[in-house]
Amino acid sequence: MSHATPGTPSRVHLDNGGRAPWHPLARQAFEQALGDGWADPRRLHAEGRRAARLLDGAREAVAAVLGARTQEVHFTPGHTASLQTAVASAAAGRRRAGSTVVTSAVERAAVLQAAAYTAAAAGAHPAGVTEPAARPGGPVPVDRLGRVDADAMIAAIRAPGVALAALQHANGEVGTVQPVEVVHDAARAAGVPLLVDAGASVGHVAVPGAWDLLAADPADWGGPAGVGVLAVRQRVRTASAGPEDEDPWAPGGVSVPLAFAAAVALQAVEADRVEQAARRRALVDRVRAQVSHIPDVEVVGDPEGRLPHVATFSFLYVDGEALVTELDRHGFAVGSGSACTSSTLEPSHVLAAMGVLTHGNVRIALDRATTADEIDRFCAVLPGAVARVREMLGVGGL
Amino acid sequence: MSHATPGTPSRVHLDNGGRAPWHPLARQAFEQALGDGWADPRRLHAEGRRAARLLDGAREAVAAVLGARTQEVHFTPGHTASLQTAVASAAAGRRRAGSTVVTSAVERAAVLQAAAYTAAAAGAHPAGVTEPAARPGGPVPVDRLGRVDADAMIAAIRAPGVALAALQHANGEVGTVQPVEVVHDAARAAGVPLLVDAGASVGHVAVPGAWDLLAADPADWGGPAGVGVLAVRQRVRTASAGPEDEDPWAPGGVSVPLAFAAAVALQAVEADRVEQAARRRALVDRVRAQVSHIPDVEVVGDPEGRLPHVATFSFLYVDGEALVTELDRHGFAVGSGSACTSSTLEPSHVLAAMGVLTHGNVRIALDRATTADEIDRFCAVLPGAVARVREMLGVGGL
Repeated sequence: MSHATPGTPSRVHLDNGGRAPWHPLARQAFEQALGDGWADPRRLHAEGRRAARLLDGAREAVAAVLGARTQEVHFTPGHTASLQTAVASAAAGRRRAGSTVVTSAVERAAVLQAAAYTAAAAGAHPAGVTEPAARPGGPVPVDRLGRVDADAMIAAIRAPGVALAALQHANGEVGTVQPVEVVHDAARAAGVPLLVDAGASVGHVAVPGAWDLLAADPADWGGPAGVGVLAVRQRVRTASAGPEDEDPWAPGGVSVPLAFAAAVALQAVEADRVEQAARRRALVDRVRAQVSHIPDVEVVGDPEGRLPHVATFSFLYVDGEALVTELDRHGFAVGSGSACTSSTLEPSHVLAAMGVLTHGNVRIALDRATTADEIDRFCAVLPGAVARVREMLGVGGL
Repeated sequence: MSHATPGTPSRVHLDNGGRAPWHPLARQAFEQALGDGWADPRRLHAEGRRAARLLDGAREAVAAVLGARTQEVHFTPGHTASLQTAVASAAAGRRRAGSTVVTSAVERAAVLQAAAYTAAAAGAHPAGVTEPAARPGGPVPVDRLGRVDADAMIAAIRAPGVALAALQHANGEVGTVQPVEVVHDAARAAGVPLLVDAGASVGHVAVPGAWDLLAADPADWGGPAGVGVLAVRQRVRTASAGPEDEDPWAPGGVSVPLAFAAAVALQAVEADRVEQAARRRALVDRVRAQVSHIPDVEVVGDPEGRLPHVATFSFLYVDGEALVTELDRHGFAVGSGSACTSSTLEPSHVLAAMGVLTHGNVRIALDRATTADEIDRFCAVLPGAVARVREMLGVGGL
């Protein structure tokens, strides 16, 4: 998507994973809700009731897309909060079963850290002690395409002492879609609830039905940051894992305009999701094909079972930060390293778990407004940028 | 403030505590930041750096108002989150000193519940067990005006085993200002950090300097809901009390447009705060005087040391919900019961702690746009509304 600002008329933003520009209808909805729904929806007067109706409508709209009941959908302060609360409250609800949270190795940091915290807290530590407890087996490994070993995950779920399992729908960093159906079948048979992190997929591909708890991220589909979505099937037993509050999913309550804008954006992107997916998949295929001609590159992630809008590659003899900076100088914004913590540019735990190159990494996530022309320009600029960075690092001859 | 909507041309909204309409400049700022600051501020490219600059500017502006250093100011997901995180992380930072959190009896439910949770979690319970532990003395009592017994609070702070003390700057439900300076002096001498909940006061009266942690609420001063402010003096030792995250104050990061709008709103209300306070104090004095002529009423809260924009009264022989509904029918939105949980209409713990009438309660919080004419109309309508509700309840002759 071009953001025409003075001096940068042809800026191309290809780093839309987890923080996309707002959908135009979301902005309209937000404005409307600021006028109609700014009041506290828990109040009894007309303004409060109007806000409550907007909030109910938002939950209903989100529920319809997720294939959930309205009362199963909760708004949270954001996607990380959704994941933390989901792990903590589902684990607390099954405290008698155990405290192990089975995860894949490529879950978001928030899930891995919440799982470690749950295990540590149950180990008779007082709250606040966060050293990850040693957990038999650790996260379940993935293959070189980023796909979890489903047999190993199922075996881990069937082991004693498991409170919860967590498997993402698709990995936002490399695009690989996970086998959530088969894992969910096994988890149901074992009586273990499955948390599906769909934060990188909802709005881009069809929402799976195979979940007991499902987290989705409005900021990823063109809604606002500052609000998250967590759906919890009614059959799932949860318990509070923090101080009491009227709303355990969003302590203090949620902002109605944010929730309403999130719901409207979701409806809007669902309306032409299939066309958008096909269009972006074609562009991503083009990028993946073109990039593969650059010397010493590894195109990352499952070539088939993948998100339609994400493409990731790692270059040998290149520093990721330098490449992001070089591309930025030429008008292209891209991500690098870990989708969750790209600022730190620490080696991505996702790439490391896949056994692929962890340095020289570039990730693009196409917006709905990204054009074929922008992708062509990116493909034209990338080889030179890689060569220049290699030259700066003294490996130009390679 | 009149919200002219079709069919309700002269609606008067007097329930602005904790959820006020946005300041016009906050809306402008939000729109601007949506264009400039929608990207993830942790990213390295131009869009990310632009968002980071907006966020830095917002922190700097808030810090200037709060009398804090920029690096001491953190944005959170909201005021309840600020209070929960402040209690949890300050208590975790002083785990060796003890696990008691000394509070007044009129703190917000979020503070009381976080204090109870901290004590329970330290009592060798696994995380998630939320039964409040018996704590010697319990919350420190207040007098009939809502003012905390400073001597008793200081004695409680000096007792062994205290991790943290919490005293609000002013009570949002009844307006009473607390003696934070004298309590802070004693807490400093005892080496106990003091959390000051200024969620009902910042933007309305001068910010006190007497704090170690200070929480303030943008939604109360005309900024957005969905973002909170927590300032922590650099000398305060804190520790994580939950899963690790890059940003322990707002896991997953904060929405830059929300933070920016919050800061702009704060600057805007600070610019004419003194005039606004004088104007609203005169209106509140008028209401308090007029209401005192209604039979069987108790005008609540300190008549002198109080917030300029809050007025609260309790009527004998009246049901609070019925009175809110009756006033709503005549075009006036007011609060009732507890400022934090007015939807439930459970007896307010604040009113109960003060030993005043807990039923038949009405609270108004004037917006900056509330006019003298609106207040006069409210004063004209209120006696009849009270009489009608008493009649419905069969106490019309009293």
